[in-house]
Amino acid sequence: MSGVGNEAGGWPLEDRGVAYGDGLFETVLVRDGTALLWEAHLARLSRGCRALGLPMPERDHLDSLPGQTGEGLWVLKLILTRGSGGRGYLPPEQPVPRLRWQVMPFTPQPTRWQEGVTVRHCRLKLAIQPALAGLKHLNRLENVLARGEWNDPAVAEGLLCDSDGRLVEATCMNLFWRRGGRLETPRLDRCGVAGTLRAALIDALPIAEVVAGPEALLDADAAWLGNSLQGVWPLARLDDAEGVEIKRWTVSDRHRSLQGEAHRLLGYPPGLAS
Amino acid sequence: MSGVGNEAGGWPLEDRGVAYGDGLFETVLVRDGTALLWEAHLARLSRGCRALGLPMPERDHLDSLPGQTGEGLWVLKLILTRGSGGRGYLPPEQPVPRLRWQVMPFTPQPTRWQEGVTVRHCRLKLAIQPALAGLKHLNRLENVLARGEWNDPAVAEGLLCDSDGRLVEATCMNLFWRRGGRLETPRLDRCGVAGTLRAALIDALPIAEVVAGPEALLDADAAWLGNSLQGVWPLARLDDAEGVEIKRWTVSDRHRSLQGEAHRLLGYPPGLAS
Repeated sequence: MSGVGNEAGGWPLEDRGVAYGDGLFETVLVRDGTALLWEAHLARLSRGCRALGLPMPERDHLDSLPGQTGEGLWVLKLILTRGSGGRGYLPPEQPVPRLRWQVMPFTPQPTRWQEGVTVRHCRLKLAIQPALAGLKHLNRLENVLARGEWNDPAVAEGLLCDSDGRLVEATCMNLFWRRGGRLETPRLDRCGVAGTLRAALIDALPIAEVVAGPEALLDADAAWLGNSLQGVWPLARLDDAEGVEIKRWTVSDRHRSLQGEAHRLLGYPPGLAS
Repeated sequence: MSGVGNEAGGWPLEDRGVAYGDGLFETVLVRDGTALLWEAHLARLSRGCRALGLPMPERDHLDSLPGQTGEGLWVLKLILTRGSGGRGYLPPEQPVPRLRWQVMPFTPQPTRWQEGVTVRHCRLKLAIQPALAGLKHLNRLENVLARGEWNDPAVAEGLLCDSDGRLVEATCMNLFWRRGGRLETPRLDRCGVAGTLRAALIDALPIAEVVAGPEALLDADAAWLGNSLQGVWPLARLDDAEGVEIKRWTVSDRHRSLQGEAHRLLGYPPGLAS
């Protein structure tokens, strides 16, 4: 089964979601009909609606969606667009947004939880746009181009810096590290997507949001990638954009702190053997 | 009649065009079944395909589209997406793009040709992303946000600077000015859309592509906006982002040079009375 979606199926030819990427999305982990980090997903969707001038969908309708899945693990993907209308880029004064959703079965990757992953730096630099920073909007060509930079399945993710050379995120995960005993993650006020797992971890642990270049990773005694679907992967190896190794980390108890908290939030096993 | 489109109608739920804005578009002026600046539109589409790693649609199929319109003036809007598939942001290795098109009647605005227009500076600054600069891709949230900054119909367009403060374009038109006897237009190697009329005018006239801040307009004895649908509008008045007047220009013979050439290319009347 490749998944099911809502009744109306696709998008009209003229929908502003495809014409301009004029909308937002969320991908939500659902276990046995219950959405994980649901309030964080709704909070980000609501922030996006305010930034784009869209009405937030009805809470009752949104709350009914995770229950449409069956037993087990699923991804619920929501896409909310500004709908049709307006004149060119000019948005309609009273937009009638379209909400579409799909659910697909989901299987996490326990080997990556336990053994960690290899990541590489991407050549593409993220553009700096504070008006859209942090939002999970539909303008994702940068992510597509960055993810297209490698096809070696042994490389799990690509790290992205902004055009000023500051660390931001990975193509679909947030980045965390520890140096000098301190947990840190990049500030996302200029670009990047502020993940819901990232928000929950910042609430739960003393994680500082910092401005840092890639040299921060060289000083780090542990580093992780995480999102609300996959949980947390320790970094085992970092390559440059040509695939040449820059650094290795031994995945060990040092990595349990952040991963343990993340997996508690998502209902996953701790991951690393004790 | 609001327009007709191609047989398949809309977009599947999972199309990458709506999911990520993963695609390109063109809006083409068609007169009596013949597309204007057609080679320039195809050249830009082809550049976009190379940048995004998409196969260019069949030339014969593309060439058949303008003839689907009737007599008179029409807009042909093409949208080309990467189609479905891939894993998340990772593009499919062999994408099967989707091409959809619509034609809608078009009426230009001769009053704006003759009397010129009022424009204002936008507050939003365009992000700098050389990997996407010049392309007419589907990630257009910046344009939507900028166009949403005003709703006074007396203001025809909004001017956009990049995050370094350099002039780039208007929300859906390119910008030209003359200072010191020289025709100039902003370089578009870091952001902005390289219009087909702009390309044709650079071929036909000695127009320099320059790096300039908004002060260039204060020194200009004439300035224009243009695109391949509307032709060329002289600037009559420039406001700041709060709507306060910065400068006025008398629309006169000085404006005929660029407009005359543009309208010759598009088959429009010269516009300004001699």
